[in-house]
Amino acid sequence: MRALNDYARLVNARLEEIPAAIEDKRFEIGEMPWLLSRSMRYSLSAGGKRLRPSMLLAAVELLGGDVGDALDFACAVEMIHTYSLIHDDLPGMDDDTMRRGRPTNHVVFGVGQAILAGDGLLNCAFETMLYSACAHVERASDYLLAMREIATGAGVTGMIGGQVMDLYCERAHISGTDALEYIQYGKTACMFIYPLRAAARLCGATAEDLEALTAYGRAFGLLFQATDDLLDVTGTAEDVGKTLGKDAESGKLTCVSAYGIEGTRKLVNRLHGEALEAVERYGEGGAFFRELVDSMIDRTK
Amino acid sequence: MRALNDYARLVNARLEEIPAAIEDKRFEIGEMPWLLSRSMRYSLSAGGKRLRPSMLLAAVELLGGDVGDALDFACAVEMIHTYSLIHDDLPGMDDDTMRRGRPTNHVVFGVGQAILAGDGLLNCAFETMLYSACAHVERASDYLLAMREIATGAGVTGMIGGQVMDLYCERAHISGTDALEYIQYGKTACMFIYPLRAAARLCGATAEDLEALTAYGRAFGLLFQATDDLLDVTGTAEDVGKTLGKDAESGKLTCVSAYGIEGTRKLVNRLHGEALEAVERYGEGGAFFRELVDSMIDRTK
Repeated sequence: MRALNDYARLVNARLEEIPAAIEDKRFEIGEMPWLLSRSMRYSLSAGGKRLRPSMLLAAVELLGGDVGDALDFACAVEMIHTYSLIHDDLPGMDDDTMRRGRPTNHVVFGVGQAILAGDGLLNCAFETMLYSACAHVERASDYLLAMREIATGAGVTGMIGGQVMDLYCERAHISGTDALEYIQYGKTACMFIYPLRAAARLCGATAEDLEALTAYGRAFGLLFQATDDLLDVTGTAEDVGKTLGKDAESGKLTCVSAYGIEGTRKLVNRLHGEALEAVERYGEGGAFFRELVDSMIDRTK
Repeated sequence: MRALNDYARLVNARLEEIPAAIEDKRFEIGEMPWLLSRSMRYSLSAGGKRLRPSMLLAAVELLGGDVGDALDFACAVEMIHTYSLIHDDLPGMDDDTMRRGRPTNHVVFGVGQAILAGDGLLNCAFETMLYSACAHVERASDYLLAMREIATGAGVTGMIGGQVMDLYCERAHISGTDALEYIQYGKTACMFIYPLRAAARLCGATAEDLEALTAYGRAFGLLFQATDDLLDVTGTAEDVGKTLGKDAESGKLTCVSAYGIEGTRKLVNRLHGEALEAVERYGEGGAFFRELVDSMIDRTK
């Protein structure tokens, strides 16, 4: 069994190659502007655990698929995650100037270029998946379904829908658990659920596998967000590696603001149980996913 | 032979249905936030001639393909064009407050929501094409190639690449014909070339057809931009339907600033000839494309 770091290394190596690979396949003017390439790479290489693409690869391995064949889909997921961070940090959105200890994309490249770097990463994610699918045309149907899962998770009823609702509720001072659930499902959980579903599609998996990974992705995603919300209140800056208390200060809708600290701890425990249950059927093979969900719980202790 | 308006009507009717069709296919939370739906529709329905999607449909008809089957791809092209206008109008980009006689998206919905409406339209374009491809899985290979053409035209070495270069040259006061050619090829011509190439792919067309439509799309796209640049200087506001002289005022790199009025007229004539030559092989069947390119020339007289 590979560990998170092993998968992350595969993803990082492939991410280095992709823009050049795409440029090589153009029939005419072949180069993207260096400024675009640089601004996309700046955010893509900003660190991060590569959690989403690694989980996609681990699911492919769990289901007996080919990790190498799935690598471009994993990279596409990371590109989509990265574009969402660039756009989220913009003035008019969260207006953040620092992320992971570095100035945000628009601080370095300007607002206009940052918008385009985000657009470029989203488009490049689909381009990357499409090149991969065209190279495996004998399995076109699996690849089409896999791409559709990614597009759905990233889309207007998924991640983008969650972002819209988040921004709207913050500006309109709307609170309540319905809004919170919609936001956290869309903004956070979808980019775990749908990459896992894409992994299942790439492997031509059964409906049972698709359902199990969907349930895991949902529980894990909501748990990931709940522990994040909890740590913003109970953690130390050293543990968490970022400025704390920011959510409360900005009046952001979080698990803690909706359920309180104790209520959030209960939610975390429930989601932990649900995630473990979802992958129980895989026995030893599900170790990666069990350890991952345990590591989330450890953060809050 | 159908005319531009006939195709545009097909596109408009289908654009009304698509968001609902996408929501119906979700396995879980099914609705996108009304605010997102409204802001996407606000710009999608802002008028415009539906030139790009109509040309895609006309090419499909020319090559003997099924216009109905290609309709979702045509709509995807219009969504991509619309998202690019929303992002282009943002502060940090062109900072425009009016487009086609109506306030721009960010003026109505705010900057953050406008960024997300653009992201939503780009993602929705791919989602729409993927749903269409999954419904025609027996022709998956053609659909994959067609999607890849759209992704390439809209992408980092196509439309987005052109936008980046345009923004950069304007800020850095760079001029010169190399930069101009890159910008006009990427920003304008690519979203004519690649939708036409996608039409050819959808029809499983020959390499000769692919080449002819590529040549036409390139000549037409550059001609479209050149006449636009010319009208900004020589036209009347009444004829053109927008504020004139804006390019010169903002020091924008245009055909007129690079080649002068007479040089641009010569370029227009050359491109007109190239476009006609590209579709000569279709004889009577190419009438739509001949009339379209003639109508561009008529604008400048």
